[in-house]
Amino acid sequence: GPLNEVLFFPSPPACVEHLFTPARTLPCSCSLPHGVETSFGKMLGHVLSAKVSLDLCVFSFSHVELCRAVLLLHSRGIAVRVLTDADYMLITGSQIGALRRAGICVRHDVSNAVHMHHKFALVDRRKLITGSLNWTLTAVQSNKENVMVTEEPDLVPPYQKEFESLWEASDPG
Amino acid sequence: GPLNEVLFFPSPPACVEHLFTPARTLPCSCSLPHGVETSFGKMLGHVLSAKVSLDLCVFSFSHVELCRAVLLLHSRGIAVRVLTDADYMLITGSQIGALRRAGICVRHDVSNAVHMHHKFALVDRRKLITGSLNWTLTAVQSNKENVMVTEEPDLVPPYQKEFESLWEASDPG
Ligand SMILES: [Zn+2]
Ligand SMILES: [Zn+2]
Repeated sequence: GPLNEVLFFPSPPACVEHLFTPARTLPCSCSLPHGVETSFGKMLGHVLSAKVSLDLCVFSFSHVELCRAVLLLHSRGIAVRVLTDADYMLITGSQIGALRRAGICVRHDVSNAVHMHHKFALVDRRKLITGSLNWTLTAVQSNKENVMVTEEPDLVPPYQKEFESLWEASDPG
Repeated sequence: GPLNEVLFFPSPPACVEHLFTPARTLPCSCSLPHGVETSFGKMLGHVLSAKVSLDLCVFSFSHVELCRAVLLLHSRGIAVRVLTDADYMLITGSQIGALRRAGICVRHDVSNAVHMHHKFALVDRRKLITGSLNWTLTAVQSNKENVMVTEEPDLVPPYQKEFESLWEASDPG
């Protein structure tokens, strides 16, 4: 059947350098544990698996390594769109400014909704990453959270359709 | 294939009385719109579909009609377990006290996690309701949110297993 994976958090600290530089042959010298497979590593691997597009719809985005992943995809020419909450894009540690400065299309919700509270990503329009987890270090390392990664044909298109609708209604400013 | 349904919010105000009292023949006289199918009505219907058990793992729970649904299930003899965040169970409007007073088993997270941030429910151990939506009126009526309802055999058991693990590790006090 199609991909269906469930990841639970918190995820223990572990080096994810190999996911960014798979061709590197020298061992990493950082102080984090190596060779450990974690929920965060799996999630990051799914984000980095994008070959064509990444559509991200997330309430808060301050996680530095997830930001590095999105910047890397953008540098590879992958079409990245980021939709975020109007209030939370300005909080301390938000990576939204860094994404904008790199030239990534970022929009924020301008509806009369109190919050744009989604936390989902669509990879190549066919892999959905969704759950309770905001893209923050606290969520990844300190909270009880769930993330589902699925390619179910009944589940992915409704999220893609909602993304397009929210994107059209949002402010590029 | 198995049930796979995706619901988006906000959900417009509409009467859900018929979901609580399906045998009633008199028309409802409340001031809300009637005969409107909404995301919230569908979600509530899935919660009320429980015949054996409801395992709920939710960060914040202040929604009055969802509380009424859980109390109704409990009164029908359905095994209800509620796991919630230690901080948020005490906020204004929380329905956790009402659940406890009715005799429902409620536990709160006592791990060193910052927050128990899940928002999922398991109906009869085979239907999963999960997403970004906390069980609050703001989430239902005012936020951009998603809820997935699925009976996928690859997706439901991991959440049930995580529920049992969190339940065992939590404080009944
Ligand atoms: Zn390292
Ligand atoms: Zn009514």
